[in-house]
Amino acid sequence: MSNRPKILPWAVVGDNIQGPDQAFYESILAQGNGYMGVRGFDPAGPKENGHERSVFLAGFFEYIKAGITDMVNTPDLFAVRFGFPCKRVWASARLDMDTGLLTWEGIWETEDRLQFSVTSRRVVSMANPHAAALEVEITSLNGDLELALETGLDGDVANLPISDDQLAQNTTVHRLLFPVTCAADRDGGLLIMESRPSEQSLYQAYRVKANRPMALEGVVGDAYTAVRLRGTLPKGEVLRVEKFIATYSSRDEHREPAAAARDLAAQLAVQGFGEVLEESSAAWNRLWGQCDVELDSELEELQGAVRYNIFQLLQNNASHDPRVSIGARGLMHGRYKGNYFWDTEIFMLPFYLCTRPEAARNLLLYRYHTLDDARESARGFGLKGARYSWMCSRTGFEQCETWDTGCCEVHITADVAHAVQRYVEVTGDEDFLVNYGAEILLETARYWVSRLTYDPRGDHYNLLFVKGPDEYCGVTNNNTYTNFLVRENLLNAVGAVRALQEYPEAWEKLQSRLGVSQDELALFGEVAGKIPILYDEGRELFIQDENFERLEPLDIEAHKEGAVPLYRTISYDRLQRYRVLKQADLVLLMAMFPERFSYEQKRNVWEYYEPLTLHDSSLSFGTHAQLAAMLGYEEQAVDYFAKSAFLDLHNIMDNVHKEGIHMAALGATWQALVFGMAGLSVDQAGSVRVNPRLPKEIRAMRLSVVVRGRRYRLAVEGDQAQVTAL
Amino acid sequence: MSNRPKILPWAVVGDNIQGPDQAFYESILAQGNGYMGVRGFDPAGPKENGHERSVFLAGFFEYIKAGITDMVNTPDLFAVRFGFPCKRVWASARLDMDTGLLTWEGIWETEDRLQFSVTSRRVVSMANPHAAALEVEITSLNGDLELALETGLDGDVANLPISDDQLAQNTTVHRLLFPVTCAADRDGGLLIMESRPSEQSLYQAYRVKANRPMALEGVVGDAYTAVRLRGTLPKGEVLRVEKFIATYSSRDEHREPAAAARDLAAQLAVQGFGEVLEESSAAWNRLWGQCDVELDSELEELQGAVRYNIFQLLQNNASHDPRVSIGARGLMHGRYKGNYFWDTEIFMLPFYLCTRPEAARNLLLYRYHTLDDARESARGFGLKGARYSWMCSRTGFEQCETWDTGCCEVHITADVAHAVQRYVEVTGDEDFLVNYGAEILLETARYWVSRLTYDPRGDHYNLLFVKGPDEYCGVTNNNTYTNFLVRENLLNAVGAVRALQEYPEAWEKLQSRLGVSQDELALFGEVAGKIPILYDEGRELFIQDENFERLEPLDIEAHKEGAVPLYRTISYDRLQRYRVLKQADLVLLMAMFPERFSYEQKRNVWEYYEPLTLHDSSLSFGTHAQLAAMLGYEEQAVDYFAKSAFLDLHNIMDNVHKEGIHMAALGATWQALVFGMAGLSVDQAGSVRVNPRLPKEIRAMRLSVVVRGRRYRLAVEGDQAQVTAL
Repeated sequence: MSNRPKILPWAVVGDNIQGPDQAFYESILAQGNGYMGVRGFDPAGPKENGHERSVFLAGFFEYIKAGITDMVNTPDLFAVRFGFPCKRVWASARLDMDTGLLTWEGIWETEDRLQFSVTSRRVVSMANPHAAALEVEITSLNGDLELALETGLDGDVANLPISDDQLAQNTTVHRLLFPVTCAADRDGGLLIMESRPSEQSLYQAYRVKANRPMALEGVVGDAYTAVRLRGTLPKGEVLRVEKFIATYSSRDEHREPAAAARDLAAQLAVQGFGEVLEESSAAWNRLWGQCDVELDSELEELQGAVRYNIFQLLQNNASHDPRVSIGARGLMHGRYKGNYFWDTEIFMLPFYLCTRPEAARNLLLYRYHTLDDARESARGFGLKGARYSWMCSRTGFEQCETWDTGCCEVHITADVAHAVQRYVEVTGDEDFLVNYGAEILLETARYWVSRLTYDPRGDHYNLLFVKGPDEYCGVTNNNTYTNFLVRENLLNAVGAVRALQEYPEAWEKLQSRLGVSQDELALFGEVAGKIPILYDEGRELFIQDENFERLEPLDIEAHKEGAVPLYRTISYDRLQRYRVLKQADLVLLMAMFPERFSYEQKRNVWEYYEPLTLHDSSLSFGTHAQLAAMLGYEEQAVDYFAKSAFLDLHNIMDNVHKEGIHMAALGATWQALVFGMAGLSVDQAGSVRVNPRLPKEIRAMRLSVVVRGRRYRLAVEGDQAQVTAL
Repeated sequence: MSNRPKILPWAVVGDNIQGPDQAFYESILAQGNGYMGVRGFDPAGPKENGHERSVFLAGFFEYIKAGITDMVNTPDLFAVRFGFPCKRVWASARLDMDTGLLTWEGIWETEDRLQFSVTSRRVVSMANPHAAALEVEITSLNGDLELALETGLDGDVANLPISDDQLAQNTTVHRLLFPVTCAADRDGGLLIMESRPSEQSLYQAYRVKANRPMALEGVVGDAYTAVRLRGTLPKGEVLRVEKFIATYSSRDEHREPAAAARDLAAQLAVQGFGEVLEESSAAWNRLWGQCDVELDSELEELQGAVRYNIFQLLQNNASHDPRVSIGARGLMHGRYKGNYFWDTEIFMLPFYLCTRPEAARNLLLYRYHTLDDARESARGFGLKGARYSWMCSRTGFEQCETWDTGCCEVHITADVAHAVQRYVEVTGDEDFLVNYGAEILLETARYWVSRLTYDPRGDHYNLLFVKGPDEYCGVTNNNTYTNFLVRENLLNAVGAVRALQEYPEAWEKLQSRLGVSQDELALFGEVAGKIPILYDEGRELFIQDENFERLEPLDIEAHKEGAVPLYRTISYDRLQRYRVLKQADLVLLMAMFPERFSYEQKRNVWEYYEPLTLHDSSLSFGTHAQLAAMLGYEEQAVDYFAKSAFLDLHNIMDNVHKEGIHMAALGATWQALVFGMAGLSVDQAGSVRVNPRLPKEIRAMRLSVVVRGRRYRLAVEGDQAQVTAL
């Protein structure tokens, strides 16, 4: 990276941003409130194509072909356009994590070499998901400026869907939103758009205010509405323009969404930018009270980086909406078409579970609400029960367009079941178990029984034709990570039924719908006991899958160059025959269930697989940091942890500029810190234990977690831990 | 089928063709000459969409997306349009196989209930690949008819590419040809079109003649040129219109293609329809002299059906063009986008090899001409040597869009090498071996060495992550069919180098380009000796692949309904875990190398695998007939043979109407008859043996074959065979 950001404890700062760095800063400076995500572009900066300067709304997907959706790029609500030839000659930006405020400062120059400064501050309100506000201050620096500018809503937007195939480059732009109403007057305007083919509506209103008398007029174009301001700005004087934007969509099921948008924009305008920012800051303050991790560390910029991981986890989570999950790049980028993966359940969810359990509950409710789709998917595969899809969006139907992954990476179903189980164990939320969780556990268990293949010769149930977390493994059999989680899934289904005996009415209702028999439960148990878990007794080593040890060794040093993933230089096909891993597989299993394996087993997994792992997935570093910490491998723990914590800010994977931020890595960072280094564990009965394994570079750590409805403050210093129930 | 064709010894007849049967007859009545293929539509019949009434030219492909081509649908050259409201009330058609003539007879009716008959006869000349001719006779039956009709070239054509995914239905039409010149006068016209994006040109000229004085004028539209004929046709009188069409394309590399087309059309017009037909019939007569199989059989319509199989093999082969192969549906349908598969080398090529070796040579030269592409493909997979693609068209680059097949069905490379070896053995064509074949054998052998994975524990070379011929097998390891052919490929490469020692100059040249060392040849031999061939000694049974015996049994009777392939009712994913086969796999291996396996081994393969085979591929029946005949299983041989011989004519797979004819099955039919029942075999030294195994339903068979440049007449009767060198 030519121009790394400065990472302060509560802010990320980019100085002298120019050229290709622009896209990187737009990614890392993204703002959101769970309802909406906005790339961190300079409001006054350039736009060349309709698919740039993206703004996304949680759950707002549209079909781009039969059955396949993309996350819809919605109007640019912060656009500022100058009405005279000028260019930006210098820029810097700052994202404040305590308040969510994004500031861009620029120096601009006219063709006559008149210079003026442009400072924009903006907020996507954490207090009201529908609200956003922008303040622009323009100061003429070396002469009187004949100013003309417009700001409003730019609905000339399109999608450039990104192919699942990481080696393909899509160039076909899809226009998904079409204007219905487009109005403007001197105070603001309204834009109503409709997505096709699903006819979802988007309602946006805005108001504009200025601190000086200017000639104002409404301007309307095709899918464009703005207020135009004109006037002379004498040297040294400041024009301050405030804009307030209200957004509703048909997903909100508001009875009068257009009126609501207009009313909210008007109300925000009365409040003024300062007050809108203050309300949002207060909301952020509450969130930080629940979620902050304070560090006493000698590692440069680590405190800010850790907060950045948490900040993005909070921004990208629609914590009150049970109909959405979190995309692999959150609401901040169209990569993976905005789709939801196992990233949510395995990598991000533990953070929400321990800090904001109501958010974790909503994430799991998304899976419950798509359970019927998962049932239909299982039917489509000729199977029983419920099969979760590798990639999901508006529905639970498969969005993955590469056959081998969508068809074979079946562990997602067990991952969802695992998250349900952990949620119930950590929260003790029996209402969830009774009304939602048990049904997920039972239907997924049924799926597994039909998906496994009984082999009478060895009297076991094989899981054939699968891919595990290590996607370089090829289509293989009996992936140990997957088989272990399938076994858990089956046993947890049995356990859920046992727990439901306490709620006879609910159990009877569920039972009448699902028709679970004692025989079936007994079968779950029997199958669970006959799933092969590949283990070499002599080496005390778990084996990744049936093919792994037949693969050819690869001289990794000779092939791996920097951050370039090997699938770009060696083909996917070739890679599957090398004994290398894309990402944590058994290391992940050990980190997820540390108490289920002996120290030696965990150590042997580390010693064997870690040197073979290429970390060509951003999901890998944090998990390695976590297991390294658990094993007491301080140096490796710190090394991997830094890669995960700074993954986006230091552009470790060299793709932040074109892919956005890596949500799963944010969650993995948090888990490495809290489960790995602080050594927090919560057992099945909800008991909290802290077994600190801080590396010497981190002297102390303070955070709070919620277990079984009770908040605990954890203070770790050296090998001492203090747990205080609040 | 509601309306089966009548199959005469030298003709196929459809009577009272109407409604949905129309598409079926258009498929089976298709005409061609290897250069061009024309669906068998009624010239005066309806056209609703530009992608119907297809006409294809061998090798004329165009890109429909990055790297992916479709076979271009070219102008309808037989179109006849009436210029007054009328409709066809009855129709029949007849395809004469001895002459290649297609006749449609129809009764038409005007709105005033005037009836007239329309008889069209047409020929796609087997004497001159650029020539085609149409004769239309119109007779007014019950009154004077005010006639207006047009005939010319209708270039308003498009492609509706058919998805590789057999469960998907594409609806996106691609226009690939655009008019450049469109001219007409009272005698005929010219149409020049260009394909985009590759800018290939198509030049077509036509001439029109009538037997009566009519008002004639040229008519030109967008991509449409025609001669319009107007006049009164008194009751009982006959209007005879003749049309002559000449076609050239930029693929022909003619210096003045437009002039050539004009000249040829004019020349054909001078000759007249009768003479054009006669010349073509004479060419057909020569072909039948080489390729006919005469049967003395009690099986109804079998003689005609066998000839139909041969007829289509001849029509779809561009026997003088070394830059094309034969699509899975020939030149007769756009299914599989016109692509070339292993179907050519394994199923069709033996027919050409034994009857028209120069045609076989050209088919293999296509593989030689795409050898550089195969090298580049291997590089793309991170491998050495040359890797042939599963589906090819203009280039050798992969056209298959389903990942698992394109990536894993690697046996195609060994199939090509096998065909090269067999070609050299049967023809003794050392020029081919020296200049082309050896290079293919060596480069493919190199590919295999890099594609195999050495396992030091068992000291063998595993072929991991493959699919065999049975496409229901899932991605598996060590498919025995594939491994066997890979072993042959390696050994044949060594053998080719040995043979090349006789041609030191050629060997040195090849050697200087390829740099083959003695060490490498030794490695080929060593690897060949260490490729696992899965065999159960106890059962004397070859095992299909490593997963096969772990799969779940399926009650086929309960699941398979009629011709519906199981992938439509059970998903592909589910099928791969059932112990069932889509098509012949080891049965094919036994049939291909009968002398390499004991009777017991062949029998055991049959007994085990045949009951598990669903024949959800048209490639399966003929091979089963062949092995059944070899085993002396008469009843099963006849049963499977009938399915293969009548596959298209009786629409056995229930898809002829929407997919066209099945080229591989045509070749498999011939092989079952000649290698299976007549028992012809040609050993590596070119010795011809005949070991008749005629079922009682076939009393006698006469045919001729060419081996090592010499033609032999084979006469088989009962268990007696007579071989006469001609």
